[in-house]
Amino acid sequence: MASRREAILQASTKAIAERGVRGLRVHDVAEVAGVSPGLLYYYFKDRDGLLAAALTYINDRARESGTASEGSDSPLERLHLHALADIQDDPEVFENALVWHELRASAVFEQPLRAPLARTSRQWDAEIADAIRLAQASGDLASTVDADAMGLIVTALTDGLSARWLSGELTTDDARAHLSTALTALLPAARKVS
Amino acid sequence: MASRREAILQASTKAIAERGVRGLRVHDVAEVAGVSPGLLYYYFKDRDGLLAAALTYINDRARESGTASEGSDSPLERLHLHALADIQDDPEVFENALVWHELRASAVFEQPLRAPLARTSRQWDAEIADAIRLAQASGDLASTVDADAMGLIVTALTDGLSARWLSGELTTDDARAHLSTALTALLPAARKVS
Repeated sequence: MASRREAILQASTKAIAERGVRGLRVHDVAEVAGVSPGLLYYYFKDRDGLLAAALTYINDRARESGTASEGSDSPLERLHLHALADIQDDPEVFENALVWHELRASAVFEQPLRAPLARTSRQWDAEIADAIRLAQASGDLASTVDADAMGLIVTALTDGLSARWLSGELTTDDARAHLSTALTALLPAARKVS
Repeated sequence: MASRREAILQASTKAIAERGVRGLRVHDVAEVAGVSPGLLYYYFKDRDGLLAAALTYINDRARESGTASEGSDSPLERLHLHALADIQDDPEVFENALVWHELRASAVFEQPLRAPLARTSRQWDAEIADAIRLAQASGDLASTVDADAMGLIVTALTDGLSARWLSGELTTDDARAHLSTALTALLPAARKVS
């Protein structure tokens, strides 16, 4: 059984996915989670605290899906699978993407969301940059690639494709195919020394 | 002097940039534009009609900034400048990006926005794809690049970088530098036949 803290986070994520951040009412979230508003405020301090915690919550869930890619042997293939893990025909992956996108859009107008959002972005960039360095160390990926710059580029591109996927402009397959095409160009295989 | 129709579009764009689509009140827009709500409804039918027209309005403005890149002689350089035109230290470019981003985020929740948004996206993709074809025809850009796929990838990446720029995670210079780095990798120069 989910803890009460987790029940609140599940309810807030679901509420954001359905009505957006700006439609989120703290008292409704408490009701859906089956807790008192007082307990919600005790755990998360205020609405901004709840939104920041929801961001960490979906980020942790996304990381779990991402690590499913660790089945492959090749670090370059793992890097591709890791990047592609955020666009999948899976209700939880879709909800993660939707909530992430909505929190990002809201941060333009809600100043207190900016710091936690920037932190989470940097974490994600660093994860991809680390995967790039592993693929370089294995000799699969060209060493000329700037891992930090490319980490940020790959995550920003995933955000952009994901936005079109969420609004129904791209199917899951098309969004993934475009991300794959881009990854191949952005992260070229090392030239084998013959 | 701006026409009354344009005054309404200016006021709605400004309102979206300040408070978001979900904070947009049609009566407030009419008041700022100095027209009656009746006239606004006469021109735009309803709130959805106004949002769709605002989308076309910022898209036209963005196209005007984009064509400023036509100064360069090289089609490949023009393509880069065209793509970079959407991220600039210019209040109107910033407002365009903000309103575009906000309309895109709202389309996830507001179904009637989806069709006009998809149309505008496809137009933008096609513009970049055409610029890619011109650079290929001039012999500057590798002919192996799939112009349509890359058009969509470049615009999606611009959206993703622009989202981080709008929320203050990236400075204008950093967002542009990352876009440049990515363009160089995504759109490789043709190998010269010696």
